[in-house]
Amino acid sequence: MAEEVKLFGVWASPFSRRVEIALKIKGVKYEYIEEDLTNKSPLLLKYNPVHKKIPVLVHNGNPIAESVVIIEYIDETWKHNPILPQHPYDRALARFWAKFIDEKCLPALWNSMWSKGKEREAAIGEACEHLKTLENELGDKKFFGGEEIGLVDIAANFIGFWLVSLQEPIGLELLTEEKFPKLCKWIHAYVNHTAIKESLPPKDKLIEALSARFGAASK
Amino acid sequence: MAEEVKLFGVWASPFSRRVEIALKIKGVKYEYIEEDLTNKSPLLLKYNPVHKKIPVLVHNGNPIAESVVIIEYIDETWKHNPILPQHPYDRALARFWAKFIDEKCLPALWNSMWSKGKEREAAIGEACEHLKTLENELGDKKFFGGEEIGLVDIAANFIGFWLVSLQEPIGLELLTEEKFPKLCKWIHAYVNHTAIKESLPPKDKLIEALSARFGAASK
Repeated sequence: MAEEVKLFGVWASPFSRRVEIALKIKGVKYEYIEEDLTNKSPLLLKYNPVHKKIPVLVHNGNPIAESVVIIEYIDETWKHNPILPQHPYDRALARFWAKFIDEKCLPALWNSMWSKGKEREAAIGEACEHLKTLENELGDKKFFGGEEIGLVDIAANFIGFWLVSLQEPIGLELLTEEKFPKLCKWIHAYVNHTAIKESLPPKDKLIEALSARFGAASK
Repeated sequence: MAEEVKLFGVWASPFSRRVEIALKIKGVKYEYIEEDLTNKSPLLLKYNPVHKKIPVLVHNGNPIAESVVIIEYIDETWKHNPILPQHPYDRALARFWAKFIDEKCLPALWNSMWSKGKEREAAIGEACEHLKTLENELGDKKFFGGEEIGLVDIAANFIGFWLVSLQEPIGLELLTEEKFPKLCKWIHAYVNHTAIKESLPPKDKLIEALSARFGAASK
């Protein structure tokens, strides 16, 4: 069957990059369409009328939004190289941690990076707690998924690349070798994994674009 | 195999009731343990150390938290009477709408009910928009899941029972027959469904408990 797979994304977004990683793990060919969020395309608005956000995957004309929902769809549609574990209990744990990253870690990390003053201080404290929780969960595993990249690793891509690329240039000392040795080891394995390496944005361009957009946080 | 299924919940919580509905759809016998949120049990803290929240399902000693994660686990573990659809695309849509309810509808509905002044006004406007989106999604189907109750219906249980039970006593006119005829028809079918009917809290006790806890909102 001739597959038509299109991804509407933004190059600097960890959420569209999550979907690209999943597609690359599966070896699915796709057409990538870069969106301009200041001038969203009629197609994006048609395909994701509820949130009007990227990423959107369109598979044989059927649109799907929300990065974790898309990854589960990809995993159920192309079954080789599984992204979620096979056993229901392990699947539940993977979903639990992906949700923890989205709902707890990412807001705290984002505010640690770009908010100011007391709000920033509070966010840093909270982000440290959440990173500690993730450090414990990772333990001595190579990846959150075990020996191979899984849903939680992909969900954590902001930590594995965005955070560590940006923290130094914006004067933030959050994820360090001393405080989080296991996460640092994970990051090293993560960014050197083939499917990840070819799905990450250029570091310099990322630092420039996000710093310009969200401004340097107060030090 | 002798199954041991325990649910840690709170009787007035739509989130623990979601899990009870799923267990009843599957006909799974379970032991229910009522938690006191002002004095959480050591077992709850042990089983959900990250969020320290109900509901928690413990299946043969393995704890799972987060109601939608639990429902997916139940659906994958006891495969008869499916809660999620079979096709990956339909599954993705169900997950999308469950997420929309949790992340968009519930916060707006909650603030429409219990916040005050301008915050409440804004929340009511937002909640109306979200209910309109759900009304459109429901269309002429009996349930969000089609002919049978599915993940989205269970996720929407707050709308199907909590909101409609509480709105009048607290002086809120949000989900009315005139504005949302399809949702009202759905609610009628929903609360009369066998698995739902026996999983809902007593209405009078619910109104009394939530009004006492969160206070009457300003009219």
